[in-house]
Amino acid sequence: MPAKTNPSDLVRRVRKGEHAAASRALSIVVDDGKDSEALAKEFFKASGSVQKIGVSGPPGVGKSTLTGRLVGHFRSKKLKVGVLMVDPSSSISGGAFLGDRLRIMEHATDPGVFIRSLASRGMIGGLTYAIFGAIHVLESLGCDKILIETVGTGQDEVEIASVADTVLYVTTPSMGDEIQAMKAGAMEIGDLFVVNKADLAGKDKAIADLKAALGLGHSAGQAVKAWEPPVLATSAKDGDGVPELAAGLEGHWDHLKKSGEGRARLKRQHATELQFWIQRRVIKSALERVTDKNLEELVARKTDPASLGRRLLK
Amino acid sequence: MPAKTNPSDLVRRVRKGEHAAASRALSIVVDDGKDSEALAKEFFKASGSVQKIGVSGPPGVGKSTLTGRLVGHFRSKKLKVGVLMVDPSSSISGGAFLGDRLRIMEHATDPGVFIRSLASRGMIGGLTYAIFGAIHVLESLGCDKILIETVGTGQDEVEIASVADTVLYVTTPSMGDEIQAMKAGAMEIGDLFVVNKADLAGKDKAIADLKAALGLGHSAGQAVKAWEPPVLATSAKDGDGVPELAAGLEGHWDHLKKSGEGRARLKRQHATELQFWIQRRVIKSALERVTDKNLEELVARKTDPASLGRRLLK
Repeated sequence: MPAKTNPSDLVRRVRKGEHAAASRALSIVVDDGKDSEALAKEFFKASGSVQKIGVSGPPGVGKSTLTGRLVGHFRSKKLKVGVLMVDPSSSISGGAFLGDRLRIMEHATDPGVFIRSLASRGMIGGLTYAIFGAIHVLESLGCDKILIETVGTGQDEVEIASVADTVLYVTTPSMGDEIQAMKAGAMEIGDLFVVNKADLAGKDKAIADLKAALGLGHSAGQAVKAWEPPVLATSAKDGDGVPELAAGLEGHWDHLKKSGEGRARLKRQHATELQFWIQRRVIKSALERVTDKNLEELVARKTDPASLGRRLLK
Repeated sequence: MPAKTNPSDLVRRVRKGEHAAASRALSIVVDDGKDSEALAKEFFKASGSVQKIGVSGPPGVGKSTLTGRLVGHFRSKKLKVGVLMVDPSSSISGGAFLGDRLRIMEHATDPGVFIRSLASRGMIGGLTYAIFGAIHVLESLGCDKILIETVGTGQDEVEIASVADTVLYVTTPSMGDEIQAMKAGAMEIGDLFVVNKADLAGKDKAIADLKAALGLGHSAGQAVKAWEPPVLATSAKDGDGVPELAAGLEGHWDHLKKSGEGRARLKRQHATELQFWIQRRVIKSALERVTDKNLEELVARKTDPASLGRRLLK
């Protein structure tokens, strides 16, 4: 049994940069443990000034290896880096993924890198609230850049767009038709695009296809010059293109700060965090009131979810 | 502007099997339109006796083609079939997917088949509540089998397990490493496994790998004989193995009815539907109370999501 922890003491230790304290705080905030709300409050106050980079894209494109390379790059610039790895499913597949994440895990003993894996399954109120809580802890810990890597195709991508300041969408020269189609949805959320595994054949075509899909070259007539998502090439395996990618990420961060878009995104992030806080809190208390008898009434069609829900909310 | 619709008249027309009425009712229930609750109540009452089959698996394995083949098979048995196609992201990719869904869409003009696509993006309270609502409408319409096809890797799979009675997990002989790893998570939710594209090399190894991962052959020592997920092979392209798959699905349906597991799953489905009803209702009313001033207070760190959320819930 762990020793009793004073919340403000824990916050103080996180701010001093203690990884063990951050680890503890993260567990409490993510699992909604005792003092979770008091902690979350403190961490929220100190947050909102660090770039959160979401790394998204279909399975198998090398997101983890690329994330690991970015960590290495940021470390070479003496930046402290936080990494959140989001596993969409169970602890079982979480384990299985670990092999793919060797490139990240080699940084695990670096005191300038804090890595945490989040499993979404079974979280009331979804993954999103937990990610926000985790991000705020990482900021308090002193991270200069926060990387959030997700594995997902649709729903997850949408979620990452609501927590990250900058969304990096990773693809490769060779993707199946269905995955190609998914890119269409991703277009809307990507701020930078990377064709990874650029050592494979078809790199130039992939870049050209992406640019065409993004409608680049068609924006000359627009009066206001918005952000044009760059399409870059990397080979995460040997690190080619990583400095250019890091420069692109920094360029987007500058754009966010100068254009006011960063503040607008922060506001949207807060709106989402608020929504998920409400969701988690309300569902929890409503579900605590559901009895087996209630469910039996549903099975017997003596009531329906809306009528029962209304009763439980009273 | 559509003519004013009387909810009970709409329900009556759906029960008579009118597709146009079902389409209308579905839109209202899914989008939470006027009279949505009154409609959902009626449709819920008539539901709970039809097999809902979730078709899940990684992108590119041929889920849509296989779903189309199953529709064809059920039609040859004179069964009425409902198909829900769940698109995880935006309307853009929804459009792009259509090409993959030709095998389903060729049934679109068959009066014994009702097909509907659901896009999850932007749905308050998530996709799950909308799927339940849609399922209940399809049951009232007289569908004998309901197929729910999802595109997803993690989160979606978990959701499908909470709405379907039978989860069919589709894979192929050749999958990337990361996709292989995902299967581990899917093991927990799959009731039947299919190696599709069985005309490709590696079918036997894929089946053997799946069986090994499922721990088949290791269950001899178990006292109670539970359901052993069959591992089947299909070639959706030319229809090979589809009758055997349909027999397997029927076998699981029989198992659900005889073992009591079907009732237990129905109860869990109702619990989930209730949870998402509460979620949707509460978030909606809380979010209506959020002002831009509230969000500005968050950006300025004058408050935090938990404190603001608590205030809004009062």
